[in-house]
Amino acid sequence: MLVVAEDFFKHVDAGNTTNKLGSKVTPVSVNELFGLNTLGISLARIDFAPRGLNPPHIHPRGTEIVIVIEGTLHVGFVTSNQNNGQNRLFTKVLNKGDVFVFPIGLPHFQLNVGYGNAVAIAALSSQNAGVITIANAVFGSTPPISDEILAKAFQIDKNTIDYLQNQFWYDNN
Amino acid sequence: MLVVAEDFFKHVDAGNTTNKLGSKVTPVSVNELFGLNTLGISLARIDFAPRGLNPPHIHPRGTEIVIVIEGTLHVGFVTSNQNNGQNRLFTKVLNKGDVFVFPIGLPHFQLNVGYGNAVAIAALSSQNAGVITIANAVFGSTPPISDEILAKAFQIDKNTIDYLQNQFWYDNN
Amino acid sequence: MLVVAEDFFKHVDAGNTTNKLGSKVTPVSVNELFGLNTLGISLARIDFAPRGLNPPHIHPRGTEIVIVIEGTLHVGFVTSNQNNGQNRLFTKVLNKGDVFVFPIGLPHFQLNVGYGNAVAIAALSSQNAGVITIANAVFGSTPPISDEILAKAFQIDKNTIDYLQNQFWYDNN
Amino acid sequence: MLVVAEDFFKHVDAGNTTNKLGSKVTPVSVNELFGLNTLGISLARIDFAPRGLNPPHIHPRGTEIVIVIEGTLHVGFVTSNQNNGQNRLFTKVLNKGDVFVFPIGLPHFQLNVGYGNAVAIAALSSQNAGVITIANAVFGSTPPISDEILAKAFQIDKNTIDYLQNQFWYDNN
Amino acid sequence: MLVVAEDFFKHVDAGNTTNKLGSKVTPVSVNELFGLNTLGISLARIDFAPRGLNPPHIHPRGTEIVIVIEGTLHVGFVTSNQNNGQNRLFTKVLNKGDVFVFPIGLPHFQLNVGYGNAVAIAALSSQNAGVITIANAVFGSTPPISDEILAKAFQIDKNTIDYLQNQFWYDNN
Amino acid sequence: MLVVAEDFFKHVDAGNTTNKLGSKVTPVSVNELFGLNTLGISLARIDFAPRGLNPPHIHPRGTEIVIVIEGTLHVGFVTSNQNNGQNRLFTKVLNKGDVFVFPIGLPHFQLNVGYGNAVAIAALSSQNAGVITIANAVFGSTPPISDEILAKAFQIDKNTIDYLQNQFWYDNN
Repeated sequence: MLVVAEDFFKHVDAGNTTNKLGSKVTPVSVNELFGLNTLGISLARIDFAPRGLNPPHIHPRGTEIVIVIEGTLHVGFVTSNQNNGQNRLFTKVLNKGDVFVFPIGLPHFQLNVGYGNAVAIAALSSQNAGVITIANAVFGSTPPISDEILAKAFQIDKNTIDYLQNQFWYDNN
Repeated sequence: MLVVAEDFFKHVDAGNTTNKLGSKVTPVSVNELFGLNTLGISLARIDFAPRGLNPPHIHPRGTEIVIVIEGTLHVGFVTSNQNNGQNRLFTKVLNKGDVFVFPIGLPHFQLNVGYGNAVAIAALSSQNAGVITIANAVFGSTPPISDEILAKAFQIDKNTIDYLQNQFWYDNN
Repeated sequence: MLVVAEDFFKHVDAGNTTNKLGSKVTPVSVNELFGLNTLGISLARIDFAPRGLNPPHIHPRGTEIVIVIEGTLHVGFVTSNQNNGQNRLFTKVLNKGDVFVFPIGLPHFQLNVGYGNAVAIAALSSQNAGVITIANAVFGSTPPISDEILAKAFQIDKNTIDYLQNQFWYDNN
Repeated sequence: MLVVAEDFFKHVDAGNTTNKLGSKVTPVSVNELFGLNTLGISLARIDFAPRGLNPPHIHPRGTEIVIVIEGTLHVGFVTSNQNNGQNRLFTKVLNKGDVFVFPIGLPHFQLNVGYGNAVAIAALSSQNAGVITIANAVFGSTPPISDEILAKAFQIDKNTIDYLQNQFWYDNN
Repeated sequence: MLVVAEDFFKHVDAGNTTNKLGSKVTPVSVNELFGLNTLGISLARIDFAPRGLNPPHIHPRGTEIVIVIEGTLHVGFVTSNQNNGQNRLFTKVLNKGDVFVFPIGLPHFQLNVGYGNAVAIAALSSQNAGVITIANAVFGSTPPISDEILAKAFQIDKNTIDYLQNQFWYDNN
Repeated sequence: MLVVAEDFFKHVDAGNTTNKLGSKVTPVSVNELFGLNTLGISLARIDFAPRGLNPPHIHPRGTEIVIVIEGTLHVGFVTSNQNNGQNRLFTKVLNKGDVFVFPIGLPHFQLNVGYGNAVAIAALSSQNAGVITIANAVFGSTPPISDEILAKAFQIDKNTIDYLQNQFWYDNN
C-alpha cells in the first residue's frame, strides 16, 4: 500500500472539559496517527476548565514535556523513593509560554489555577507512552484490588476503601 | 584502579520485617554492587512476615520478574488505562518455585497469604530501576501535594486527605 | 547540588521573524533546559511572518512532530532515495490544530502561506536532535566545499556556485 | 485474544542433575513464558549435584546476575582479550545469599564445591539471552568444525581433536 | 524454513562508473542480504572513475566508516548548525589503507582526486541506513518542491530553480 | 579542545602474519580512532598467510560483516544451543568480493585456504566490540581455570588440560 501525506497527519480539536475533573486529554499517539510507528515520539493537547485537574498519573514508557498555550497551571511531579525514605515533590506555576518536564515514570499532575480556561501541548518520548491514572488504577481497577491490601498500603480502614472502590472513576484520556 | 572479583560480588541477608508493612526489600542495584554499571540488570531479595505486604508500587525504569523461594504470595499488577477507561487487575497466588512478571512501569504488589514467612527473589531489567511506593508518593511527599488536587483526584474530602498526609509513611525499600 | 523545580523549567517567548527568512526557531533542548538530560525529548516554538520560511533542513538525531497553534503552513518532507531512484515529496497544508510528523533524518520545511503570522510547537525525539539547514551547510560551510564538488553535484556551473558561496547564509535556529 | 494472568506465570521445579555434568539449568525465558515478550529480562533456576558443573558458556545477548539459594559454588568468568594479550580470570566462592555478576558475552562457569546439592537463581538482561556451551559448540557442532582449524586453534594434534569430536556432548540447558 | 549459510552471504562486483557522476555505490544492506536483519550493520562497495564524485548525501539512520582499497579520495563532512550559526567542514585526502568516519546524519561526500580509479569499502551502523542524495532530494523530488521555497532557501531566482528542477538527477546508489 | 579532521582519521597497514596462527587483525575501534565515540561502529583489517587462521573467537558486543579483498577464505560460525541440544555450524568458502555476516556473540573463524595471502575488511556493530579468542580464554587465562572444571567440560583428562594450560597462547588481535 502506498504511503501518503495523510498517514503523517491528524487534526486535534479542543477537548470537552464538562466532566468531574474539568479536564480532557486528546492524544495523538501511534493509535491515532499511524505514521508515528517506530519514531519514538507522540503528542497530546490538554484542555482545562477553571480549577480543572489532570489528576496524578504516570506514563510508564515516556517522559513528558509540556508548554502552556493559554492560562495558568499549577504543575508538579513526585520523585521515586529517596535514600532517606522520602518522595520529593517539585511544583511550579506555569503561564503562557512556560515549558516544564515530567521525567519518565514519575507521578505528575496539572491543575488550572487561573480564572479562565487553560490549554497545554504535551509531547511524550514514545509512540505510545501509556497512561496510568493513579487513583483509578488503585481504587477503580477491574476487578478491585483486595481491600486488605489497600487498607494496609493507605493506612485507612476497610470501610473507607470499600467506599472509594464504589465511586465512579472517570478517565480523562 | 584494577578491577577485582569483589567488584562483581555482594552478600544479601534476610531483611527485617518488624515494621508496619511486615515486609522488607533488600536491593542489589548498581548502588550496592558497582559491577552492575551499564549492564542493565539488578536483583532484590524480598522478605515477608505473615500477612506482610509489599504495597502497590512502580519501578519507573524496569520490568520485574519474581520467583518465590519460600511461602505463599498473592501478587498482582494493574494495567495502564484501557480504551474503555478501565484499568485491568491481574492477580495470582504464587507458591514456592512459581515465577511471575510485572511489566515496566505498572503498579504491582505482593501480599504474604501463607501461615509462615515468605521469601522471594526479584530481578529487574535496569541497573537502577527505581521504586515509587504509590501511597507514600501521593500522600507522604515532601512537601505535600495540595489537598485540593488529592481531594479531587481521589474523590474524598479534604479532612481525610489531611489525615492521610499526617500519617507516617514507612518505606520498606 | 540539590535539584530544584527550576531545573525542569524554561520560558519561551515569540521569536523575532525580522530576518531574510521571515521565521525563527526558539529551541528548548538540553542546551537550554538541563533537566532534559537523558530523557530523549525536546521542544521548540517556531514563529513565521507572512510568507516566512523555515527552509529545508534535517534533524540528524530526531523525529519531529509539529502542531499549528496559529496560522496556515504549507509543510513537506522528502524521502530517502527510493528503489526507482526517486525522492518522494509529501506535502500538506496545515491549519490551527493540525499535527504533522517529519521522520528522523529526512529533509523538511514549513512555509507560512496564510495572511497573518503563524506559530507552531514542534517536539523532537532527542534531548539534542541537531539541525542542518541544507543550503547553509552545502553552500555556506566554513571553509567552503570545493566548487568542483558542488558544480558536479548540483549540475550547475562553477560561477553560480561561487556566487552562492559568497552569499550570507542566515541561520534561523 | 484476551491477555490473562497465566500469560505472566510459570512454575519451575528442581532440575534433574543425574547427568554427565551433574547440573541442570531450567530456563524461564520468553520461550517458556510469553509475557516476557519485549520486556528485556528472563530468569533461570540452576541445580547442582555435589561437584556438579555448569560448564564454561556464554550468553550472547545478556548479562547474568546470580544468587545462591543453597550450597556453595566456585564461580568465575574470563574477560575479553586485554591489551597485553591476556584473558583475566575472576573467581569467587559463593555461599547462600551471595550474589555475583557475569557481564554480557563473557565465558563463565559455576562448580558445586560443597558437600551437598546447590541451587542458584540466575536472571538475565534479555528475554532470550541465548546459551553457547563452549566445549559443545567447538567440539560438538553439527557438522563438525574442520580438524585443521581446531588443531591449530587449540595447539593439539588432529587425533585428539578427532577423539574429542566423537564424544557425546551433553547440553545441560 | 531452515536457515542456511547462503542467508549470510552476498557477492559484490565492481560498480559501473560510466555515468554523470563517475561513481557507483553497491550496497549490501538487509535488502540485499537478509541475514543482516536485526543486526545493526551493513556494508557497501564504492567505485570511482577519475574525478568521479559520490555527491553530498546523508544517511538518516547510520554512521559510516570507510577504508580506501585503491586510489586517492578527497572526502569531507559538514557539521550541524553551530552556536555561531556556522556549519563546519572537515576534509581529508585519503590514500590506500586510510580510514575515515562520517557521523550519523551529517552531509558528506567523496571525490576521486587520483589519476586512476578508486575503490572504497564503507560500513554503516544500521541494517538499512538509508541514503538521501541532497541535490536530488531538493531539486529532483517527485513531485517538485515549490520554487518559492527553494528560491528563498537557496537565495537564487526562480528561473534558476526551474532550470535545476528540469535536470535529470542520477542516483548512484 | 577543537575537533579536527584527524580525529576521524586513521591509517591501517598490512598486518604481520609471521606468527603461530599465520594471521593478524589490525583493529580500528574507538581505542585507535577516538572519533568513533558513541557512533556504534568500528572496522578491522585482517591479514592471512597461506593456511593462516583467525581462530574461533567471539565479539561479545558486536555483529561482524566481512568482505574479502584478496584470496580465498573458509569461514564459519556456530549457533547458540538449539532446542535439540545441538550447535549448528554454518560455513562458506569466500573469494574476492564475497561478503559474509557473523551474528553478535557467536563463535566464528576464518582460514586462508588459497595459495597466496588473503586480506579481508571486517566491520563491527560497536565502537568497541571486544574479542574473546576461545582457546586462549579457556586454556590460557591468567590465572588458569581449575583443571577439574576444564577436564569435566572438555571430557579430557587433567594431564592433557595441564599440558594445554602450559602452552603459549598467541593473541592475533
